[in-house]
Formats: sequence, structure tokens, C-alpha cells
Amino acid sequence: MDWHQSEDMLCIFGTGDLGRSLGLRLLQSGYRVVYGSRRPHSCGPLPPGAQVMNHVAAARSSSLIFICVHREHYGFLETLAPHLEEKVLVDLSNNLKKDVYPEANATYLQRLVPKATVVKGFNTLSAWALQNGLLAGKQVFLCGNSAEAKRAAADVATKLGLTVLDKGSLSAAREIEDFPLRLFPEWRLPLCVAVGLTAFFFFYLLIRDVIYAYVEQEKDISYRIMISLANKVFPIVSLIMLSLCYLPGVIAAFLQLYRGTKYKRFPDWLDRWMLCRKQMGLVALGFAFLHAIYTFVIPIRYSVRHKLISRMKENKTTPFYFDNTEAWGTDSFYVLGITGFFLYVLLALTSLPSVGGSLSWREFTFIQSKLGHLTLFICTAHGYVYGWNKFLKLSTYKWYTPPGYMLCLIVPSVVLVLKLLLLLPCVDRTLTRIRQGWERNQSKETVGDNKATNL
Amino acid sequence: MDWHQSEDMLCIFGTGDLGRSLGLRLLQSGYRVVYGSRRPHSCGPLPPGAQVMNHVAAARSSSLIFICVHREHYGFLETLAPHLEEKVLVDLSNNLKKDVYPEANATYLQRLVPKATVVKGFNTLSAWALQNGLLAGKQVFLCGNSAEAKRAAADVATKLGLTVLDKGSLSAAREIEDFPLRLFPEWRLPLCVAVGLTAFFFFYLLIRDVIYAYVEQEKDISYRIMISLANKVFPIVSLIMLSLCYLPGVIAAFLQLYRGTKYKRFPDWLDRWMLCRKQMGLVALGFAFLHAIYTFVIPIRYSVRHKLISRMKENKTTPFYFDNTEAWGTDSFYVLGITGFFLYVLLALTSLPSVGGSLSWREFTFIQSKLGHLTLFICTAHGYVYGWNKFLKLSTYKWYTPPGYMLCLIVPSVVLVLKLLLLLPCVDRTLTRIRQGWERNQSKETVGDNKATNL
Amino acid sequence: MDWHQSEDMLCIFGTGDLGRSLGLRLLQSGYRVVYGSRRPHSCGPLPPGAQVMNHVAAARSSSLIFICVHREHYGFLETLAPHLEEKVLVDLSNNLKKDVYPEANATYLQRLVPKATVVKGFNTLSAWALQNGLLAGKQVFLCGNSAEAKRAAADVATKLGLTVLDKGSLSAAREIEDFPLRLFPEWRLPLCVAVGLTAFFFFYLLIRDVIYAYVEQEKDISYRIMISLANKVFPIVSLIMLSLCYLPGVIAAFLQLYRGTKYKRFPDWLDRWMLCRKQMGLVALGFAFLHAIYTFVIPIRYSVRHKLISRMKENKTTPFYFDNTEAWGTDSFYVLGITGFFLYVLLALTSLPSVGGSLSWREFTFIQSKLGHLTLFICTAHGYVYGWNKFLKLSTYKWYTPPGYMLCLIVPSVVLVLKLLLLLPCVDRTLTRIRQGWERNQSKETVGDNKATNL
Repeated sequence: MDWHQSEDMLCIFGTGDLGRSLGLRLLQSGYRVVYGSRRPHSCGPLPPGAQVMNHVAAARSSSLIFICVHREHYGFLETLAPHLEEKVLVDLSNNLKKDVYPEANATYLQRLVPKATVVKGFNTLSAWALQNGLLAGKQVFLCGNSAEAKRAAADVATKLGLTVLDKGSLSAAREIEDFPLRLFPEWRLPLCVAVGLTAFFFFYLLIRDVIYAYVEQEKDISYRIMISLANKVFPIVSLIMLSLCYLPGVIAAFLQLYRGTKYKRFPDWLDRWMLCRKQMGLVALGFAFLHAIYTFVIPIRYSVRHKLISRMKENKTTPFYFDNTEAWGTDSFYVLGITGFFLYVLLALTSLPSVGGSLSWREFTFIQSKLGHLTLFICTAHGYVYGWNKFLKLSTYKWYTPPGYMLCLIVPSVVLVLKLLLLLPCVDRTLTRIRQGWERNQSKETVGDNKATNL
Repeated sequence: MDWHQSEDMLCIFGTGDLGRSLGLRLLQSGYRVVYGSRRPHSCGPLPPGAQVMNHVAAARSSSLIFICVHREHYGFLETLAPHLEEKVLVDLSNNLKKDVYPEANATYLQRLVPKATVVKGFNTLSAWALQNGLLAGKQVFLCGNSAEAKRAAADVATKLGLTVLDKGSLSAAREIEDFPLRLFPEWRLPLCVAVGLTAFFFFYLLIRDVIYAYVEQEKDISYRIMISLANKVFPIVSLIMLSLCYLPGVIAAFLQLYRGTKYKRFPDWLDRWMLCRKQMGLVALGFAFLHAIYTFVIPIRYSVRHKLISRMKENKTTPFYFDNTEAWGTDSFYVLGITGFFLYVLLALTSLPSVGGSLSWREFTFIQSKLGHLTLFICTAHGYVYGWNKFLKLSTYKWYTPPGYMLCLIVPSVVLVLKLLLLLPCVDRTLTRIRQGWERNQSKETVGDNKATNL
Repeated sequence: MDWHQSEDMLCIFGTGDLGRSLGLRLLQSGYRVVYGSRRPHSCGPLPPGAQVMNHVAAARSSSLIFICVHREHYGFLETLAPHLEEKVLVDLSNNLKKDVYPEANATYLQRLVPKATVVKGFNTLSAWALQNGLLAGKQVFLCGNSAEAKRAAADVATKLGLTVLDKGSLSAAREIEDFPLRLFPEWRLPLCVAVGLTAFFFFYLLIRDVIYAYVEQEKDISYRIMISLANKVFPIVSLIMLSLCYLPGVIAAFLQLYRGTKYKRFPDWLDRWMLCRKQMGLVALGFAFLHAIYTFVIPIRYSVRHKLISRMKENKTTPFYFDNTEAWGTDSFYVLGITGFFLYVLLALTSLPSVGGSLSWREFTFIQSKLGHLTLFICTAHGYVYGWNKFLKLSTYKWYTPPGYMLCLIVPSVVLVLKLLLLLPCVDRTLTRIRQGWERNQSKETVGDNKATNL
């Protein structure tokens, strides 16, 4: 580690927020820092202990140069090229938007200074995080064509307390540069599904409830849209999303059973689906949360109180007998809902990075699989109990359409039945063997045997 | 650090999921990787940049070999033994169940290849975490008989961004191997206590409420089991669990006062109890959460609405005077409950690893001790206010048994009184001195004095 | 890295809890450890593998000595001074209170042993965390006058899996020593504001509601204090706190626009305000949470049920017509409140360290800025809808004072209007340019141009 003696000098081009914060942190980690600036005497406040020189002098004093300059101003580096030969240039630049330029900033830089070695990286760090020392355990990406150059950059990162993830050659620069610009990519599919389902069920129930009442009974119950209707849509979407969270796992299991091996890749759509199961579950929890609060405010609503009061005014004389079955039925309905919601929250808590990270593999699997399917089962039961005495009534099927909660029970029921099939001892045994590497195909027996050997 | 030149080549035996993911990550961290395989030409896709050879050739090229093979297939390593002399073998294997084999996998491996040095470790990493680079700051365990071999393995772990925890000699291998198989060991005691208390109070209240009404008044109020009864059991169990969470701390303080030193170990049962206080508190919060939701759904229940309506139908003429004391009493009861629940949630939030980790020691103590006891006090007061006007009524003691909420107030009251005693200035002063290392026993004065010197 | 051979021996003075835990961890990380003790033969249990000697012999065996002794007992180090020449002394001591001594412990130590090099640090670690290996990714502070000595201490920290943050020269020792004693410094301002606002609005509403009713109508409605009044104060304080959370950002933007540069420091009060925005938001969420629960318990309150029942008894004959506008109005009011609360919770979740840390910069900005302002907008709308039909009624202005909810709408409305102004295309464009480093001042054009170049 001879750079402790001669190579603890690092150079930074650019004296903006990021350049200054990076310099501060490097100085604190025991490096010496020299800034390269066009106007070394008027570049504003720099971290104490750092030197400032013109670009040529600064470049000469270090073999590693951090480029903290906007891509638009890379021009001056081309003129500096002779002084940058054999230097490692770490490109920290980001763009404000995706796909503004035909090539990645780092590729462009490499083209401008072909005799230097460009490494892309560190660009996911913010000036703010650097300044406040919030680096412990953070991950940075690196890419570059020279393993030697990447190692030099990675050594600096390690010294700063960062963890390095090597993304390969410089062609990965675009991916790394797009990283700070990504906006919840893994949330997109779940949110689209949620919006689609919400819109569909909203209009479906609007027609069945509000418009039906208006057309057939000439009653204006439009005031129900805000809460009553929404409180039907939310649990429906929540339950479907929850079952969509467990459906891909079941499909994958049947695919593995059918193929008799786990070594064939899943189709792309299944892969993508499986990768957003966590987000799907969290969206489902969001809807369940709204459903819970909407339910809690029911008794303080004007229309509910009105109904209660007018009901008593109207049939003052009719006795109101207590129906024990009704009491048991509605109470079971509430208890199932509450238990389901409780398990939902438990599942969500273990998906917090810091909680999930402290679980062992077996614990995580237990919660996400066993507890997850139990949650689905209880929430589905909650739905069935809701309609326990209405399935056979003809008046339920207004305009020959089934009510929303019936529609929403289809997918969860299918998932639960399929999961039940997978739990049959014979199926389960085969699946476990496949997942341990066993392959059914006899002609490839030797390869299969080889694989079953390995972890 | 000469292995940068000659020892950056690592060998992996086994081309399964784990072997491939580990190789990928090692390559990304700047190592060269060679796989050892029985059939080097048909072992499936390997990470780009890795070489594949037969076992002998692969073993020759590196001094450190990762064994990513199921224990059942260790046989081939015995035949390879001559080629593994003086190599460091890192055993990553796990079993599917505990106690299947008489000795740990690593011990078995060491027996098969006595001239190699076996290090157990890395086995808590999943192929999935390795593949997705989720290693930053994670902890791995290592054990082995050679410090030199452990250091070599630890260097690799550090390079991967992992933190190493040395568990000592190879005899700790079993413990390390059991780690991924553990299933919430620290939750077992709290859950058992919770289940026991729930069962007891459920049957106690079932007899006092439902069966009593059936026997003495011949009324069937069994519909109350689902919600009313549960909503009595939950707060009772929650309060007792919360007080059980603070009881061991109080006992420990009195034990230290009695013994006059902090240098004697606590009895085992107290140690175990103290280690699961956090889990006890979280279980208590779970019950409190259920209690809150059960309370919120009260007004939309069928039986409650029925009672309200029939009450108005029956005594239409009796005037219903407003009782100011009753209004204050019930409102105070609710406010205490809400405040207690709010503090409960606050306590739980600070027990999240990422939140608790950002607190200073004094902040953590402040929240868990001061705020914790305040929570217990408020929740106990919530219980007392519930029965404020019923303590002296004879009708409260059906079949000569006290109601559930009275039983549940015993433990919290005891804890609060004992805590109050500990807060008396003279007791507090002695305890603080003991906790700083002072010892009462005069004959050991010199040792005590020595200890009080040290942090 | 020659200390692998000769310098892997570390010395610890002090055999208390901290000394022993530190030694255990150092041994596990591959160091050899020797303890210095006044009575080497009676110093109690030490971690297996460690040696114990008298202070002089122990000091001789290592160039780095950890001082795990209370400051009160530093005296013996002065007499040892000749044996500590050129040693690095790492001072781990903490005090029980702030400002007890005129100088920091480390400065005092340096004065006692002037020829040794003192490094302050590691003092934020607890014996408990050391013993349980909870160090992964934790941050420790270091300071000292010798870069060489700090590097030696930092190397040990890195080996232990800690991340080091260099705080500069030994004059920072006091700051480091005060760190474990801090008690929520960043929460103080938000909590003070919250308490102040709560007190003001509580008395304001007490006068307007309870006292007004007593004086003018001679009715005793004091029972409303517990819940009805509190449930007015909480949302008011919550909304004002939320808007105070976004006000400083708006002020900062206008200041930058006015100054035409981002390179001038904000006034101190603004800086401090901006640093506690997160805490302000969390306090606001706390009040919103209480508001939600207080709302849920409304229908089970005695006074509410009493009003409902007595209302029906009184005007049995008056028909109670359904008011569609009223139904829509109150339902919208609830929906806005629920949506606002939902977004509140979402914002709070992303402020959890482990969740926020996994977001990209753009995602974090999106949530905290876009979603944050949306939350403020919705909650403000919730307030406006509450008083939608009361603004123009004279009876609203009891004793010529506006009701509380009107007062609380002032700040949020101002923030929203100012934010709207900032979103105007021309203003937004100028602001964006300023934030990218552009400066309006023409005389400094060249410097501005220079800065705009840099990241």
C-alpha cells in the first residue's frame, strides 16, 4: 500500500458544492487534496487544508483526478489532454434529464482524453451527504475499462467508508448516470395495476349503485360516492393486489414442476412481476389502510346519523328483534378484517430494510410466505363472510351483474386453491427436490446430478 | 498486502446458485476467480470473467478455496485431500434442519481433509443477497482453529463490504451453521407468555360474563365473544406484558442494591427475561393495537346499534339527564388510553434498528426508561379510571370473582411502586454508585476501588 | 501495512466494562491485546486470550494505548509519563454531565502527558454494543493534533467494522465528548414551537368555547375540554407545524432570488430552522395522529350518545330532511382529512433512515417536496372545507374573535401562495439557474461563470 507515502495526494477539478464536499471528506479520511481551477485565486471558500492550483499544476501532482464539472464544460479537458496522459479520471457528473446526449458523460470524456483512463462512479453521492458524513455503509457504483484504475478509485471509496459495487466496463456508464434520475421504477407496475383496478371498480360500482338507484328507483344517492363507494373500491383493490403479490410465486412453482428443473429462466413477464411483489404488497397495504380509516369514520358521517335518526322516527311502533346470527355474522366479519389488517401491517414492517435485514433467511421466508398466505386467506375469508347471506339472493344481481366483492374474490380464491395443491405432500416433495437442484429429465441425468451437489 | 499481486486468485468448488453469486461478487471486488467442477465443460452459465477447471487444477491455482457444495457430497474432497494440503477451505454449507448430523459440517470437512485448514463462515449470506449486492454493512460470522486462515477469509469479507465477527475456534461451527435455521428464538418466551395470559383471561372472562349470564339470568349473550370479550382480553394482556417488560429491570436494581455490587452475575432466568424485554414490549404493542381497532369498530357493530335503537324505543318517556361526572370520567378514560397508545407507538418506533441506531446512549435511555415508565403509568391509570366507580359495588364481583381489569392492575401497580421506591434520592444515589463500580463489601475495598477507576 | 507483523499488539488501560468489551472485540478482529492494570492479579474476568501486566510493562508492548479510565483517575498517567513518550493514547472517556470540567478530558490528558500523542475518539461506543458486535457500519468520531496518530487509531476502527469521521484537531475533543450526552438537540425548537402553539390555542379556544358558553349562555360545557377542545387544538397545531416545515424552503428561495446568487450564506435563524424541518414534520404527524384517534372515538363518547338520544326524544314529530349538500360537504371534509393523513404517514415513512437511505436523490426530492406540498395543500383544503359555510355567519365570531381554524389557515395559505409564485415558469427558470451556480451580479460575471461550470 505504497500510496500512503506518495499517492495520498488526490486532485479535484471543479470547486462547486460537490467538489468542495468531496474534498472535505477526503481530507478527513487522511488524504491530501489539491483543487484544479481556472481562476485559482477567486474560486471561493474551499475546505481548510486543501491547495488550489491551475489545472495543469493540479493534474501533475496526482495520479487520480476527480472530475466535478458539468458535462457542458468538458471542453477544457480536451486542451488539457497532454497533461492527463495515464491519469485516472473519475467522472462524477450527472445530467438533469435522461437521454439528452447520445453518449454517456464518461464515454464522452474518454473520447476527449483518449490517453487517460476514465472511471465512472461516485455520482450517486450528494454534496449534502458528503458534507454531513452520512456515508457509512452506503454503496457506490463504479465502472471502467481498466481494472487497475477501478481498483485505485475503489480504494478511495473504501477509505471513505463506502461499499463499492463494480458494474463492469465503461459501457455501463449510462446505467450508472441514469441511476440518480430514476423515479421509483419498481413501483410503476404496481401503481399502474392499482390505478387500473381502482378505475375499473369505481365505474363498475358507480353504475351498479348510484346510477342503478337513479334509473330504477329515481333516488339521488350520489353523496355516497365520496365515502361509501370508495370504501367498497379500496378493499376490493387491496385484496386483488395482495393476491397478485402471491400469484407469481405459485405460477413459478407450477412452471418448475412442469419443466422439471429450476435451471431454465422464467419468462420475462414473470421475472418482472416477481421483482415487484414487495411494492405490490405495500400498495395493497395502502389501500387496506384507507379502507380501515374509511370504516372508522362511518358512524360520524352525516348520512349515517341521518339514517339512524329517521329510522327511529319512522317505525316507532315496530319492535326491533335481536338477531343472534346477524350479530355473530357481522362480528366475525369485523374480526376477520381486523386480524387481516394486523397481519398486513406485520408483513409491511418486516419489509422495512432495517427490520428485514436483521432476520435470518428462515425467518424472512416464514414471514413472507407462511404469514403472507395466512393474511391472504384471512382477508379472503373477510370477503366471503361479507356476502355470506347474499350469494343466493336475486336482488344482489342488479342488472344481472355480480356485486364488486364477488368479482374481487376470484383471484384470491384461485391463488389459495393453487397454493393448497402445492402443499400436497407429493407435490411439495417433488418441488423441494427441484429447488435443491434435482432435474426430472433423465437424458441429462449427469448434469443434474452435478448440480444437485452444489449449494 | 502482497496478495494484491499473487493472491488475488480465489477458488470456488461448486457451481450452484451460491457458488455462482459468490463468484460474481468476488470478480466485482477485483479478485480473479476459478471454479472447480467435476465436469468443467457442462456446468452451466458462470459469471463472465471466471475460469472453470477440474477440481485438482482449480485447487492448485489458489490458496483459499470456498466450498459451496452440499455436505452430502463432501466425499470427493477426501479423495482430493493430497491436493488440498495447507489450503484454507472456507465452508459455506448449511443444513436444512438442525441436528441431522452428529457433528458440524465444518468439523466433518476438517476430519476428511485433516491437512487443510477449515474456516467456517459466510453461510449466513444468501445467493439472492450476493447477486443483488445487498452486502453493505452486513455481518458475517467466522470461526476456525487457525488465526492466519481466519484472517485470510476475513480479508476477503472486508473487500466484499462485509463486517466480520470472529466466533472463535472451529468448535463454534455448529452455532454458526444453526444461525440461518433459527426461527425467532428471542420471541418465543414473550409469545408463550402472551398466549398463556390470553388463554387464561379468555376463559376467566368467558365464565364471568357469558356463562354467568346464561346460568344466572338465562340470557344468551354468546355473540359478545367475538368482539366485546376479545376487547377486554387484549388490553389486559397488553398491560401485563408491558409491566413484565419493566419488572426485570426493577428486580435487577433491587438485586444489585441487596448484593451491594454489580459484578455478580444475575440468575439465568433474570438474564433471559431481560434479553427479551424488547420483544415483550412489541407483543404488548400488538395487543394494544388490536385493542384500539376493536374499540374503533364498536359503534358500527350490529349489537351496539341494536341496543341504541331499542333503548330509545323502550323508554320513550323517561327523560335522559346529562351526567357531567360521567362525561368527564369516560372522556378522561379515553384520553388516557389514547395518550398511552401514542407513547406505546413512540417506544416501538425507537426500537426500530435504524431509528434506535441513530440515537445517542442518553437519548436511548431517556426514551426506553423515562418514557417507558411514563407509558406504563398512563396505561395503568387508564385501567384504574375504567373501574373508578365500580370498585366498591358488590354486583361487580360476580360469583365472588374480581373482574379481569382488577386482576390485570396488580403487576403494573407493583412495578410502579417498586420503581417509585428506586427513585427515592437515597436509594437512587446508592444504586448509581453501584452501577459506577462501587462495592459495598468492605473486605474487598481495594478491588472495588480499582474497578471504580475504570470505564 | 507492516503492523500486521509487529503492531498487531494493542494495549488497554482499564479493566472496566468498556475496557473488557473493547478488548474482546479487538481480539476477535485479529489483534493481540494486553491490559494494563494496577493489580494485574486481581482485576476480575478478562476476555480469553488477553494478557494482563502492570501499566509500565503493558505500555511498553504497544505503540497504541486505549485509555478506558474515568477522568478523575488520570493522575496515575502523569507518573507514567516517561513510559508513554511517543505513544498514541486514545482517550475513550466520557463525563456524566456537560461542562463539569474547564477543559475536555483529552486536552487534560494531553497536558498530563505532553510527550504522548492524544487522540480522542471511540467514546460514542457503548460497552453493550461492543460486547454484542453491533458495530457494523457505525460511525465513530476521531480528533487529534497528529495525522499519523489519527491514522493509526482509524485503522483499528476500520478493522472493527466502524466508519471513521475525522473531526480535526484536539480542540474538537469537547464536542466529541459532549456527543453521548446530547438529548435531542434538533428536537428542541420543534417541540418548543409545538408546546407554545398548543398552549396558545388551548386557552384561546377555552375562552371562546367553554368560558363564552358559561358567561353568555350560562351553560357548563367544561366536559368538552378533554376531547372536543383537544380535538380542535391538535389539527390546528398540526397544520401550522406542517406549514412551518415548508415555509423556510420558500423563504430561502425568495432570498436566493432577491440576492441573485446561492453563494451567500443564509442568516443563522433560517439555517437552524431548515435543519429541523424533518423534526417539525414528525411533530406535526404526531398531532395529526392524535387528531385521527380523537376523531375515531367520537361516536363512543358518553356526551355524543347522550346528544343523539336526547335529540330524538325531544323533537319526535319534526321531520328530519336529508340535506344532500350537507352530506357531500361533510363527506368531502372527511375524505380530505383521510387523504392528508395518508400522505402524512407516507412522508414520515420515507424519513426513516433505512427507507430514506434507499431512495435516489430524485426520489427523495420528489417525495419531500412534491408530495410534501401536496399534503400541505390537502390538509389546508381540509381546513377550508370545515368552515365552508360558516365564514360569513356572524355567530361564528363570538366576542368578535375568529374561530381557531381560521387562524390556523393563515400560515399554510401564505406558504401555498408563495410556493405557487415560485412555480411560475419565469421565476422557476431563474431559480433553477441560480441553484446551478449562475449569479445575477454582472460585475462578478467571470466568477459566476466559473462556478456554473462546477458540480
